Amino acid sequence: MAKITQIIIGDELLSGKIQDLNLKWLATAILSTKHKLVATRIIGDDEDQIKSVLTQSLDESDVIIITGGLGPTKDDKTKKVLGDWIGGQQKENQEAITLAKKHYARWNREWTSELNSYHLIPEGITPLYNPVGFAPGLMLKKNGTFIFAAPGVPREFQGMLNEVIIPIIDKEIGGDEAELELFNIRTYGIPEEVIFGTLCPGLWEQLEDYGSVSSLPGINGVDITLRLLKNDETQIKKNKVIELLKTTNLYPNIWHIGLESLQEVVVLKAREKGITFSFAESCTGGLVSSLITDISGSSTPFIGSIVSYSNEVKINKLGVKSETLKKFGAVSKETALEMAIGAREKLNTDIAISLTGIAGPTGGTEDKPVGTVGIGFSTASSSGSDIYHFHGDRVRLKERFAAKALSILLDLINKA
Amino acid sequence: MAKITQIIIGDELLSGKIQDLNLKWLATAILSTKHKLVATRIIGDDEDQIKSVLTQSLDESDVIIITGGLGPTKDDKTKKVLGDWIGGQQKENQEAITLAKKHYARWNREWTSELNSYHLIPEGITPLYNPVGFAPGLMLKKNGTFIFAAPGVPREFQGMLNEVIIPIIDKEIGGDEAELELFNIRTYGIPEEVIFGTLCPGLWEQLEDYGSVSSLPGINGVDITLRLLKNDETQIKKNKVIELLKTTNLYPNIWHIGLESLQEVVVLKAREKGITFSFAESCTGGLVSSLITDISGSSTPFIGSIVSYSNEVKINKLGVKSETLKKFGAVSKETALEMAIGAREKLNTDIAISLTGIAGPTGGTEDKPVGTVGIGFSTASSSGSDIYHFHGDRVRLKERFAAKALSILLDLINKA
Repeated sequence: MAKITQIIIGDELLSGKIQDLNLKWLATAILSTKHKLVATRIIGDDEDQIKSVLTQSLDESDVIIITGGLGPTKDDKTKKVLGDWIGGQQKENQEAITLAKKHYARWNREWTSELNSYHLIPEGITPLYNPVGFAPGLMLKKNGTFIFAAPGVPREFQGMLNEVIIPIIDKEIGGDEAELELFNIRTYGIPEEVIFGTLCPGLWEQLEDYGSVSSLPGINGVDITLRLLKNDETQIKKNKVIELLKTTNLYPNIWHIGLESLQEVVVLKAREKGITFSFAESCTGGLVSSLITDISGSSTPFIGSIVSYSNEVKINKLGVKSETLKKFGAVSKETALEMAIGAREKLNTDIAISLTGIAGPTGGTEDKPVGTVGIGFSTASSSGSDIYHFHGDRVRLKERFAAKALSILLDLINKA
Repeated sequence: MAKITQIIIGDELLSGKIQDLNLKWLATAILSTKHKLVATRIIGDDEDQIKSVLTQSLDESDVIIITGGLGPTKDDKTKKVLGDWIGGQQKENQEAITLAKKHYARWNREWTSELNSYHLIPEGITPLYNPVGFAPGLMLKKNGTFIFAAPGVPREFQGMLNEVIIPIIDKEIGGDEAELELFNIRTYGIPEEVIFGTLCPGLWEQLEDYGSVSSLPGINGVDITLRLLKNDETQIKKNKVIELLKTTNLYPNIWHIGLESLQEVVVLKAREKGITFSFAESCTGGLVSSLITDISGSSTPFIGSIVSYSNEVKINKLGVKSETLKKFGAVSKETALEMAIGAREKLNTDIAISLTGIAGPTGGTEDKPVGTVGIGFSTASSSGSDIYHFHGDRVRLKERFAAKALSILLDLINKA
C-alpha cells in the first residue's frame, strides 16, 4: 500500500473562483486500488509555499501527486518550482518533444517550440504521457518518495491518473494488503442522532462487528457506511447485515443498500419493471429531469418533461385550470395535482411527478415561505399531492425539492 | 489581515464518497474580507493526524478553521481531539447547554443530555452559536492562533462562518490592508496558449501593469482574471483595461467582463431587453433550463421548456416530422431546427434554443460519435441549426452542450 498525499496548486481554488473536483477524482480512483489517500493540501501559486509543502509531505507519504500549474501561461509554476526544489536545470528534453508532438497530433495540430515550453524539462525529472490534453505530466523521486505532477483540468487529471500514474504506483510500490469493500446503508427522513440515539441505540456497535462504521447526513438522508474486508466471507457478512437491519426500526426508512445514487436506483428499478415516467417541473426548472438523464440507460423509462415555469405553460401544456391557479395559487396541492395528472396524460407515461414551489430568495409569503413546495403524482390507479417545507438557498432548495420528488417516484415504482 | 488555514476533517472526502463544498464556501466568504485563505488541508478522521496537522498549521496561520467531526456520532472526533491537544478535560458547560437548547428550540424540539454530548466541552474551549444546525461550534486560542471548529454540513458551516466566525476574526485581528477587486475577462473558443501565444502575445504583460493576472480554462472558455487594488482609481483602471481589450484580436471572443456566470448574463441581458426564451432539450435532459432557473429573476425571461427525451415527445409536443427523424435521425441539424421552431411556437417565446445529441457512453456511431450535438435556434426573423462536437464523459458532455447552447442564446439576445 502506498500512502498518497495530494497537493493541489491554484489561487483560483483558494479565492473561491472555481470548485475543486480533483480531490474527488483522485479519492474515487484510489479507493478501488490498494493504496490510500492520506491527505490533500490545497495551496496557492506561491513558489515558497509549494516548496515548503513538498518538503513537509515527503516524510508523510510514499507518493505525492501534484495537480495544477502545468499549463502554458506565466502563472503555471509547477515545473519551475520542482526544478528549483531538486536543483535541476531546465533543458531541452527529447522525450518531452516526442510527447508534445503526439499530444498535439491527436487534435490535428502541430506542436512547435514557439507555442510553449513543453520541451524544456528540469534535469532529474521525467516527462509523462498525457492521454487527454497537451502538456506532458512530470515524475521524479526524492528521498524514496515518488512525486507526480499532472494538469489541473479535471478531465486531463483523471485521464493521466488512471492511465499513467496509478499503473506506475502499482508497479513501483505494489502491495498485498487486503482490499476493503464499501457497503452503504442509505436512509431518509430520520436525523443521524435519532437513528443511533433513540431509534436503534445499539446499531453502531452491532455494525462494528462487521467492519468500520461511519455515518454521513446528505441531501437524500443519512448514509451509514460500513467498510468490510474483501474476502470469501464478504457476501455472507453483507447478508447478515441485511438480516440485522430487517430487525430494526430503521428498516422502513432504508431506501437502498448499495453505492448507487437515488436517480440511479430510480432508473434501474423502473427499467426492471418496465415502467415509464415523466415530470412537470416548475420551481426545479428541469433539475429533476437533468438528474435522471445523468444516468446512462435513463432513456428507456424516462420519456420527457414539461418545464412549466410560467402559468401560461402550466395552463396550455399541462391543462392546469386557470381557476385552480387563481383560487389556490401556483404553489398549492391543487395545482401540483393538476400538473401531475396533465403531465401523465400529455406525455403518456405510467407515472408522472410534478413540482411547484418557491426556491427564493424572493417570492415567499407568510403563508407560503421560501422553501415551500407542492409535489404531485399521478399513476393509472391513483393521484395525489402534498405540500413540503425545506430550508436553504435557491440552488440547495432546488436540490432538496428534486430529492424529495425522486424519493416519491421511487416509492411509486417500488409499489407498482 | 489574518492568514487563515482551513482544515477539513472527513474520511468521506478522502474516500471520494462526497464532494467537498466547504473549501469553496470558505474561499468565497474570505475573498470579500481583508483576510486571506493561505491553505486548505483535508485529512481523515484520525486523531494523531488531526493533532499533527493542527500543530503544523499553528506556525503558518493566524486563524485555523476546522470543519467536520462535530456531529453526534462516534466518528465525530473533533471536540475530543481538540481537548486532548490542549490538555483540557471534558466538563459540563453551561453556555453549551444554553446553546443546545436554543438550537433545538428553533425546530420545536427539546434538547436533553440523553440525546448527545453537546453539553460536554473540554476546558479551555468556548462553545459557539450555530445559526443553522444543532451542534455548537468551538473556539480556542493557542500560541496566539485562533482555532475555530464548525460543522461539516455545508449549510451549517456557511451560516456559522458568516454570522459567527468572520465577525470574531474581524474583531480580534482586524487589519487595514488594501482590499483587492477581481475583474474577470471571460472568453470563449480560443485555447489559453493561443490567446497569449499567437493571438495577443503581449497581452499578459500589458495587463500586469494594472494588477496581478491569472488565467483559467473552464467549461465556457478561458477566463483571464485581473486583481486590482481597490481604491479611487479602480474604475479608471478598469475602463483603461476595457479600452486595451478593444484593440486586441481577442475582443470578438470576450462574452463578458465581470464575475457573472454565463446563465446570469443571459438572464440579465434578456430582462434588460424584455426578451423571452424557451428550450427544447433532448440530450441535456433539462440541464439548460435548470442552469437558467438557478438564477433569481429568471422567471421574467424564461417561460418554460419541453424535455423531449423520446422521439414521441419530439413529434407530439414539438411538431418534429417523423420523416425528418427517419431520414436524418434524432441527432441532426434538421431535427434540431424543427425542435427549435416547434418550441418557439408551442411555448410562444421570442427565442427558442434546441439541443439533440449523444451524451454517451453508448449510442455513438462512426458518423455521429458520442459528443455530437445538434443545436438549433429560432427567432421571429430567423432560424438555424448546426452540429458541434465535444469530448468528455456523460455528465461533462451535458455541461458542454449546455454551455454552447447558452452562448448561442446570449449571441441572439445581444443581436436582438
